Amino acid sequence: MTAPAPFRGVFAPTATPVRADLSPDVARWIDLCKQLLADGCHGLCPFGTTSEANSFSVEERMSLLTQLVESGVDPAVLMPGTGMCAIPDAVRLTRQAVDLGCSGVLMLPPFYYKGVSDEGIYAAIAEVIQQVGDERLRIYLYHIPPIAQVGFSLDLIGRLISDYPDTVVGLKDSSGDWNNLQAILTNFPGFATFSGSERFLLETMRLGGAGTISAMANIVPGVIRRLYDGWTGDDAEALQAEANQMRTALADFPMIPAVKGVIAHQHGDAEWRRVRPPLVALSDAQQAAMAARLGA
Amino acid sequence: MTAPAPFRGVFAPTATPVRADLSPDVARWIDLCKQLLADGCHGLCPFGTTSEANSFSVEERMSLLTQLVESGVDPAVLMPGTGMCAIPDAVRLTRQAVDLGCSGVLMLPPFYYKGVSDEGIYAAIAEVIQQVGDERLRIYLYHIPPIAQVGFSLDLIGRLISDYPDTVVGLKDSSGDWNNLQAILTNFPGFATFSGSERFLLETMRLGGAGTISAMANIVPGVIRRLYDGWTGDDAEALQAEANQMRTALADFPMIPAVKGVIAHQHGDAEWRRVRPPLVALSDAQQAAMAARLGA
Repeated sequence: MTAPAPFRGVFAPTATPVRADLSPDVARWIDLCKQLLADGCHGLCPFGTTSEANSFSVEERMSLLTQLVESGVDPAVLMPGTGMCAIPDAVRLTRQAVDLGCSGVLMLPPFYYKGVSDEGIYAAIAEVIQQVGDERLRIYLYHIPPIAQVGFSLDLIGRLISDYPDTVVGLKDSSGDWNNLQAILTNFPGFATFSGSERFLLETMRLGGAGTISAMANIVPGVIRRLYDGWTGDDAEALQAEANQMRTALADFPMIPAVKGVIAHQHGDAEWRRVRPPLVALSDAQQAAMAARLGA
Repeated sequence: MTAPAPFRGVFAPTATPVRADLSPDVARWIDLCKQLLADGCHGLCPFGTTSEANSFSVEERMSLLTQLVESGVDPAVLMPGTGMCAIPDAVRLTRQAVDLGCSGVLMLPPFYYKGVSDEGIYAAIAEVIQQVGDERLRIYLYHIPPIAQVGFSLDLIGRLISDYPDTVVGLKDSSGDWNNLQAILTNFPGFATFSGSERFLLETMRLGGAGTISAMANIVPGVIRRLYDGWTGDDAEALQAEANQMRTALADFPMIPAVKGVIAHQHGDAEWRRVRPPLVALSDAQQAAMAARLGA
């Protein structure tokens, strides 16, 4: 068995459609996943924050992932989110991902308790690694303090890389703080660091990063892919400016409902607008305003 | 079938012991639960914050609760925590609690997404109520913004009481903010409001509250019970001062590891010191310092 190479490129934390009864809409989800890969994404992160991952049960997530792979999507391009508050849940999701052939997992730290120590977060990640006990496992740390509140400090990242060099191979930085992303890129060369926003993609690549995992890749995968492919070219700044447009257009709307609203708009399929509580879908007025903004 | 009366009194969010392999130590847990009831608690809240509830899987929690009831503990005195980020998980835990005969559940709001609207939290709670669909269900809202970050505003509490008067019957306020607790007590007379700290028990009772659900009830249930029983008496202030002593003694230690450390100290049983990551057990030095503090 060949060990998976670290991921590079543009990844979409795929949105998760739900039916009127709030159950996952598997067919629409698989269609989106396949389309994003066809439209330019190198891979997908099912069950990221944009996916409303934590609003779905472990069983729902496992069933969805199995069906995605059975539908013909290559598991080697998948980096599902598997970090959970409870270690047994994280172990179960991570083990399934490895067994299905996913080349990596995106791992939130346990996020219920706040103000926890690096030592405690380290112990949680180490416990998952040991319980999964599979040398094929590749972990991408998921640092998103604006939402999870709990995150990975530079010290903790360094310790995990040092102790698990073949397993902890990368990170997604959704801090929204360029200084933090820059520090990770500078301190850990060779580590597969993804920017959590396409806004930082060009600067990330210039500092040796791996790419981006961005909510916007759900709706403008081709635009972001052109930037990734062209970042060394003369028009890199122009490509970055183009890639920034969608996020700017959506700035006045709640992000995840807006991403689903744009997918609904693009597909002419209002079913896509639904979210699971506690999120709230765009109102009809917001949806119309968003559509007008996109037209402009 | 008689509808359960609202809870009143002193409730312990029971600590959850784990073995060296981090699995739940069922026998020690049931022993503690029975002892707390014998020592003065009116009831128990398995799977609160002090219980490290979110560090255990849905399956572990369901298995523990079943075994507790099978051990002979009256389910009528149990208010297990059942609020989860994912609605299907909350529904599953809540339905089990109702089916086992628990007289209420303690419900966290979904806590992953931050800055969510009252409308979204309302929809999440309403969805759980509708999916459980059982008129025996009694919900106590769990407001603990220092940890969950997401909580229940006065407006939201009022709306839930108004729309579900027979189901949303009480609340635990762990805001740590007396002004907030006072506002709830004042605005919603007849609502079974519990203070999340024994420090506010006397004032809570004076404003018509239902009692307290406090971490300290794991270690000084009798002291808190005396205050509850004697709050109208001449020595109420002295009883409150006595009840305050343990929290003051533990102020320099991380709360949940300290509670487990005190249980270990009281029982002469070091097994109790363990916690699940991301929490970290008291060090030997901390444990010794804590024991010295209790001796003083």
